[in-house]
Amino acid sequence: MDSSTLIGMVSIITAGLTIGLGAIGPALGEGRAVAQAMTAIAQQPDESGTITRTLFVGLAMIESTAIYALVVAMILIFANPFWDHFVRTGG
Amino acid sequence: MDSSTLIGMVSIITAGLTIGLGAIGPALGEGRAVAQAMTAIAQQPDESGTITRTLFVGLAMIESTAIYALVVAMILIFANPFWDHFVRTGG
Amino acid sequence: MDSSTLIGMVSIITAGLTIGLGAIGPALGEGRAVAQAMTAIAQQPDESGTITRTLFVGLAMIESTAIYALVVAMILIFANPFWDHFVRTGG
Amino acid sequence: MDSSTLIGMVSIITAGLTIGLGAIGPALGEGRAVAQAMTAIAQQPDESGTITRTLFVGLAMIESTAIYALVVAMILIFANPFWDHFVRTGG
Amino acid sequence: MDSSTLIGMVSIITAGLTIGLGAIGPALGEGRAVAQAMTAIAQQPDESGTITRTLFVGLAMIESTAIYALVVAMILIFANPFWDHFVRTGG
Amino acid sequence: MDSSTLIGMVSIITAGLTIGLGAIGPALGEGRAVAQAMTAIAQQPDESGTITRTLFVGLAMIESTAIYALVVAMILIFANPFWDHFVRTGG
Amino acid sequence: MDSSTLIGMVSIITAGLTIGLGAIGPALGEGRAVAQAMTAIAQQPDESGTITRTLFVGLAMIESTAIYALVVAMILIFANPFWDHFVRTGG
Amino acid sequence: MDSSTLIGMVSIITAGLTIGLGAIGPALGEGRAVAQAMTAIAQQPDESGTITRTLFVGLAMIESTAIYALVVAMILIFANPFWDHFVRTGG
Amino acid sequence: MDSSTLIGMVSIITAGLTIGLGAIGPALGEGRAVAQAMTAIAQQPDESGTITRTLFVGLAMIESTAIYALVVAMILIFANPFWDHFVRTGG
Amino acid sequence: MDSSTLIGMVSIITAGLTIGLGAIGPALGEGRAVAQAMTAIAQQPDESGTITRTLFVGLAMIESTAIYALVVAMILIFANPFWDHFVRTGG
Amino acid sequence: MDSSTLIGMVSIITAGLTIGLGAIGPALGEGRAVAQAMTAIAQQPDESGTITRTLFVGLAMIESTAIYALVVAMILIFANPFWDHFVRTGG
Amino acid sequence: MDSSTLIGMVSIITAGLTIGLGAIGPALGEGRAVAQAMTAIAQQPDESGTITRTLFVGLAMIESTAIYALVVAMILIFANPFWDHFVRTGG
Amino acid sequence: MDSSTLIGMVSIITAGLTIGLGAIGPALGEGRAVAQAMTAIAQQPDESGTITRTLFVGLAMIESTAIYALVVAMILIFANPFWDHFVRTGG
Amino acid sequence: MDSSTLIGMVSIITAGLTIGLGAIGPALGEGRAVAQAMTAIAQQPDESGTITRTLFVGLAMIESTAIYALVVAMILIFANPFWDHFVRTGG
Repeated sequence: MDSSTLIGMVSIITAGLTIGLGAIGPALGEGRAVAQAMTAIAQQPDESGTITRTLFVGLAMIESTAIYALVVAMILIFANPFWDHFVRTGG
Repeated sequence: MDSSTLIGMVSIITAGLTIGLGAIGPALGEGRAVAQAMTAIAQQPDESGTITRTLFVGLAMIESTAIYALVVAMILIFANPFWDHFVRTGG
Repeated sequence: MDSSTLIGMVSIITAGLTIGLGAIGPALGEGRAVAQAMTAIAQQPDESGTITRTLFVGLAMIESTAIYALVVAMILIFANPFWDHFVRTGG
Repeated sequence: MDSSTLIGMVSIITAGLTIGLGAIGPALGEGRAVAQAMTAIAQQPDESGTITRTLFVGLAMIESTAIYALVVAMILIFANPFWDHFVRTGG
Repeated sequence: MDSSTLIGMVSIITAGLTIGLGAIGPALGEGRAVAQAMTAIAQQPDESGTITRTLFVGLAMIESTAIYALVVAMILIFANPFWDHFVRTGG
Repeated sequence: MDSSTLIGMVSIITAGLTIGLGAIGPALGEGRAVAQAMTAIAQQPDESGTITRTLFVGLAMIESTAIYALVVAMILIFANPFWDHFVRTGG
Repeated sequence: MDSSTLIGMVSIITAGLTIGLGAIGPALGEGRAVAQAMTAIAQQPDESGTITRTLFVGLAMIESTAIYALVVAMILIFANPFWDHFVRTGG
Repeated sequence: MDSSTLIGMVSIITAGLTIGLGAIGPALGEGRAVAQAMTAIAQQPDESGTITRTLFVGLAMIESTAIYALVVAMILIFANPFWDHFVRTGG
Repeated sequence: MDSSTLIGMVSIITAGLTIGLGAIGPALGEGRAVAQAMTAIAQQPDESGTITRTLFVGLAMIESTAIYALVVAMILIFANPFWDHFVRTGG
Repeated sequence: MDSSTLIGMVSIITAGLTIGLGAIGPALGEGRAVAQAMTAIAQQPDESGTITRTLFVGLAMIESTAIYALVVAMILIFANPFWDHFVRTGG
Repeated sequence: MDSSTLIGMVSIITAGLTIGLGAIGPALGEGRAVAQAMTAIAQQPDESGTITRTLFVGLAMIESTAIYALVVAMILIFANPFWDHFVRTGG
Repeated sequence: MDSSTLIGMVSIITAGLTIGLGAIGPALGEGRAVAQAMTAIAQQPDESGTITRTLFVGLAMIESTAIYALVVAMILIFANPFWDHFVRTGG
Repeated sequence: MDSSTLIGMVSIITAGLTIGLGAIGPALGEGRAVAQAMTAIAQQPDESGTITRTLFVGLAMIESTAIYALVVAMILIFANPFWDHFVRTGG
Repeated sequence: MDSSTLIGMVSIITAGLTIGLGAIGPALGEGRAVAQAMTAIAQQPDESGTITRTLFVGLAMIESTAIYALVVAMILIFANPFWDHFVRTGG
């Protein structure tokens, strides 16, 4: 097995696991935030504006951790410096 | 085993695990959000519009993490740059 | 072992695990949503229409993650591009 | 070991694990839904019709994920395209 | 090791694990449903008929997932198409 | 190692694990049902007949999943078709 | 290693694990049932007869799953048909 | 390695794990039962006789599962039929 | 590696794991019982005698499972029949 | 396999796992903080300013742990001193 | 590798794991007991003497399980009969 | 594989896992602290100064454990004494 | 690999894991005790002396289990009798 | 591979895992303590001095377990007696 095959295999596995694992936490965290947001609106309808705004800021923060994982997965598939090195050197 | 066989095997395994793992978090998170939404509607029927709207925004955010995993799985099956490289070079 | 045997074995294992794992999250999430829906109806019978509608939208969203896993499993069994490649090239 | 032996072994293992794992989630989810349904009926007997109807729709949705796993397991045992290929080609 | 030995070994292991794992979920789910049914009866004795009927429908649904696992285990032991193939071909 | 040794070893391991794992779920489920039954009787002594009857039906359903596992374990030890095949053919 | 050594080793390991695992579930389930029984008696002393009778029936059901595991473990140690076969045939 | 060495090693490992695992469940179950017993006595001191009697019966049942594991461990160390066989036949 | 080395190694590992695992359950169970005992005393100081007596009986029962594990570990280190056999036969 | 191939493979795997694991904790922690923030606003609307400020400070602290993981992953991909060493020395 | 090296390695690993695992249970159990003790004192200050006495007896019982693990670890390091055997026989 | 390659690989893996694992605990702990801080402010707005101060001291303490992990990861990447040794000795 | 290298490696791994695992339990247990102590003080400020004293005794007991693990880790690094043996005999 | 390479690799892995695992417990424990401290202050503002003092003592105790892990990790990296031995003897 030459180097590029190995780098390719490893990149595929890692990209998948990264986003597969990285999707669990944010999804659960956002589910909790959204669920509580609706309880809060039901309890204090007059503050629904403040609550919704807080929710969106929070969701953006939580989503950011999913984005980090997605970015790393995408880098590994489409802009992998190790792969580029071996393809360039014919390794 | 030549390179394309290995890349193919690894792509299949990773694609399946990615969506298999990535479906757990969003499903649980959405289940929680939907469950709480109905409790909130039952508690404050007059705000059902605001609650439903918040729910849909939240579900879209949560679903997005499942979509990330699906996108990565689909890329690995149908638009895999590593596979294309080895098929193109006859590796 | 020739390439098509390996690709076949890997596709079978992955297809099964994908749907096996991918069925856990949605089933639990839907169970939670349905359970809470009935509590909400019992608490506020007059809103049963809104609650049921919200439930169905939510179930559809949750079911979608199970569908993603099923689709990937079906693609791996019946429309596997890697398998087609090796069968076509006699690998 | 020839190819058909390997494909056969892998199909058997995967079929069993798929339904074995895939039965856990739906069973727990349905248990929760049924349990809550009875609490709701006890709390609001007049709405038992609506509650039961919602329960049945929900159980059908949850059962569907178990059905997906069963279908994949059955396909792997009785309509496995990879097995058919190797038996047909005498591999 | 000839093919039928391997197929036999794998069938035995899988049959056992399938029912071993597949019995956990339904047992826990049914335990929850039965437990809640009795709480509901104690709370609203007049509705014990409706509750019991709902319970039985629910138990049947939950039991069905255990039955799926049992059916697959039994097929693997007594009506295994892969085993039949190898015994018939003397493999 | 001849075939019957392997089949024997695998049958022993599987039989033990099947009942070992399969005993966990029913025991926990029955424990929950029995515990709740007594709470219900304490809360509504007049309905102890209905509650006990529901309990027994439920315990029978839950026990059935343990019985499935026991039956498979016993078949593997005392009526194993694969073992019979190899002993009969002297394999 | 001759066959009887292997069968012996496997029987020992399986017997231990079977009862080791199989003791966890019943012990927890019985602990729960007994704990709740005493709460029920404290809450409704007049029904202590009915509660105790229900408890004993329930404990017998739960204990039965531990007994299943014990029976399988004992069969594997003292009445193992596979061991008898190999000792008899001098394998 | 001759047979008796292997049988000896396996017996030691299994005996330890059996009682090591088998002690977890009963200890937790008894802890729960004892804890609840004292709550019940504090709540209904007049029934302390009935409660204590129920507790002792329950503890005996729970302890029995630990005893099963201990018995199997002791049989494996001091009355192991497989070990006796190989020592007797000089295997 | 001669037999006594192997038996020695296995005895050391098993003795440690047995007591290491076997200490977890009793410690947690006793912690729960003691914690509840103090709550009960605070709630019903007049019954502190009965409660303390029940606590001590319960702790003795729970401790017994830890003792079982300790006894097995000590037998494996200081009175191991398998070790004695091999040292005696010079194996 | 030369050194740079190995270093490359290991860097890819580690970068993915680092951010994959490191995204779980912060996402769950932030989800909890955001959820509670909205409850607090609903409960005490007049303090929404203080609460929101506290939330943002807290989210920044929690996000910092995700950033640590991202930074390490990025260093491993784009500024890996070990990789640079081997590429520079032609290893 | 001679025997004493193997026995030494195994003793070191086991000693560490024994106390490493054995410290988890008692620490959690004692934490629970101490926490509840302070709640009880706050609730019934007049009984602080009885509560503290019960706490100390309970802590001693729980600590005993940690001591068992420590004793076994210390025996394995400083008074290991297997090590002494091999050092004495020059094995 | 020469020594520096091995040391490099191991340093990369360890650095990533250290911060990947070490980020989970602090993130969850801080999430809990921040969540409770906002509840406390909502409950007692007049003490928001004391609460915020306590929160910041606490967050600093919790963050310190994440910093420990980050420091160790950074030392392993940029100031690794083992790596320096082998690079210096040309190992 | 000579004996002292192996003993050294094993001692390093074990020392680290011992304190790494052994720190989890005490930290969680102490966290629980401290948390409850402050609740108790807030509930019954007049008893803060007794509560604090109980807390300190309890923390000392819990810390002792962490100390056990630390002592074993330190013995393995700095006063390891097995290491001393092999260094002394030049093994 | 010479001895110092092996000792170096093992020291790096262990140092990282030690602090990686050892940071989880303290972070969670401190998070719980800080969270409860703020609840207590909100509930009894007049006792904020006593509560804060108790909190700081508790945090110091909990942090100490993280320090133990850090100390062991630092010793393994910078003052490792085994490494010093092999570097000194040129092993």
